[in-house]
Amino acid sequence: MARLAGVSRATVSYVLNNTRAVRISEPTRRRVHEAARELGYVPHAAARSLRAGHSRMVLIPAPSVPAGRLYGRFLHELQWALGRLDYTVVQHGTIGLPGDEAARAWAELRPVAVLVPGTGLGPQGVAVLKRSGARAVVTVGPEAVEGAHALLMDHASVGHQAGAHLYERGRRRIGVVVPEESGLDMFSRPRLEGVRRALDGTDGSVTELPLGYDEDSAARLAARWRGLGLDAVFAYNDEYAMLLMRALQDAGISIPEETAVIGADDLMLGRLLRPRLSTVHIDLPSGRDLAELVDRAVRDPGAPLERHPALGARVVHREST
Amino acid sequence: MARLAGVSRATVSYVLNNTRAVRISEPTRRRVHEAARELGYVPHAAARSLRAGHSRMVLIPAPSVPAGRLYGRFLHELQWALGRLDYTVVQHGTIGLPGDEAARAWAELRPVAVLVPGTGLGPQGVAVLKRSGARAVVTVGPEAVEGAHALLMDHASVGHQAGAHLYERGRRRIGVVVPEESGLDMFSRPRLEGVRRALDGTDGSVTELPLGYDEDSAARLAARWRGLGLDAVFAYNDEYAMLLMRALQDAGISIPEETAVIGADDLMLGRLLRPRLSTVHIDLPSGRDLAELVDRAVRDPGAPLERHPALGARVVHREST
Repeated sequence: MARLAGVSRATVSYVLNNTRAVRISEPTRRRVHEAARELGYVPHAAARSLRAGHSRMVLIPAPSVPAGRLYGRFLHELQWALGRLDYTVVQHGTIGLPGDEAARAWAELRPVAVLVPGTGLGPQGVAVLKRSGARAVVTVGPEAVEGAHALLMDHASVGHQAGAHLYERGRRRIGVVVPEESGLDMFSRPRLEGVRRALDGTDGSVTELPLGYDEDSAARLAARWRGLGLDAVFAYNDEYAMLLMRALQDAGISIPEETAVIGADDLMLGRLLRPRLSTVHIDLPSGRDLAELVDRAVRDPGAPLERHPALGARVVHREST
Repeated sequence: MARLAGVSRATVSYVLNNTRAVRISEPTRRRVHEAARELGYVPHAAARSLRAGHSRMVLIPAPSVPAGRLYGRFLHELQWALGRLDYTVVQHGTIGLPGDEAARAWAELRPVAVLVPGTGLGPQGVAVLKRSGARAVVTVGPEAVEGAHALLMDHASVGHQAGAHLYERGRRRIGVVVPEESGLDMFSRPRLEGVRRALDGTDGSVTELPLGYDEDSAARLAARWRGLGLDAVFAYNDEYAMLLMRALQDAGISIPEETAVIGADDLMLGRLLRPRLSTVHIDLPSGRDLAELVDRAVRDPGAPLERHPALGARVVHREST
């Protein structure tokens, strides 16, 4: 490369390593970069990060279940926002490893920041990441973790909103769908808990309803529906609500007269159903706000840890309740 | 670490670098590993890959639009399958960079294999990746790229199946939905082309129907439906089909009598609609087969390039056509 650019090897090294201590003229820099491009030179991200002290990589563990529409959009917006701030987002597929072991795998890539949705990462994992050079660790989940910034997303509020709405509409015997699919516990448990809390101390009752995401499971539940004596159901989210509502309608149960149904996520499909589906609209944190939090934390790793509540939940009342 | 393990620094280095040329007893190895764990030592993936000659990282560019349900499941299954073969999957968020420039960004992470869905990567990008140490590049898309293995997914066959089905059902004036959302061209264009090909040389005609994924756009299209004189529509996929079918029904158009509607993807929601939605079932390549192709290619980078057709499409006839 030195020969092609007509400069010394030391100069090539200074330019490509972006060494500012040595004065090199702009035309020379340009010649070196052109030669590098021509020869197909690709810098080694990790080697470069060793020199620079840190990389521009933000690592996010890939979700352990296929991402739903709402989370998929959030992640996409977040990638855009981080990209605009000149970070590269890498989703790391650490399926099946418990949090602190996964943290060791993430640390091997030497990310400058790590953004962890959900639960599982503990204070030890945070420490491993920081020792390996991560300037910021941000969790997005129900609880803050020692040493990490936190966006606090309490899914209990989703259930609480649904439960309170159904009670206000005069319903007293309320079923709550708990998906049988693995990996959804971290959302479904707090949602169920939220409904219980909303009904606590009232004359209302809560019944847990396990449901698989398939028509047979829904038909079986619908077949024993009248025996359960429920007058309303919070169906976990809009997709489970669509599945259950169809099965109830096919079993001759009128909605909302006999049973009120409410979902969550406010997907468009709910507006396309008849009756139109009531739902809990969930405001996830904006990708831009989260990207800016990451950037602040990277710039000033010594700043106090930030804690933000970051989940808005409000009922959208339509025809099914 | 040497002090804690009670061994020499050279021994620590041999053990952690997994140097097999030097004989070290099992108890000593164990002591070193224990000391490493206690001190929170995390190997540097890139440094380790420099020593070993290659990493175990398979890089996949993150999709430039939020992934749909079908692709999301495929990616998830692929991650599992690669994980079982001891690879780590990293999704790289290179949104907005053209293929060969993106390849340079991927190359910086020194992946052992790169798996590229869609179009955009050219022979130059493949060469950059290989020079940087990638032992295999696999594309999953409509065309093979020089230097890379290819799973060939021709979405024209999806449209062809839909068009042929509608024609067989006696329909002659066939609309084809083309989503207005950006990033879907790479699927919607070949699907449209496939319908055209199925109708080629017959007395049938094809009308392109731009449609945004929102109720207003669907209502506008439904309002001018009768003026279009169509008797069938291939609605791009099941979600657009649900949207359009609802708008047509709300406008008083009976389905399938007046207009037949067919989607694609065979999502469960199609079975929950009334009338039940006909659809084109798409078989994506299995995650396991694809993981095994990657593994073969990594083990033997000199082997001849593989080319496999990898998309099955067949009509599932229900009530809407």
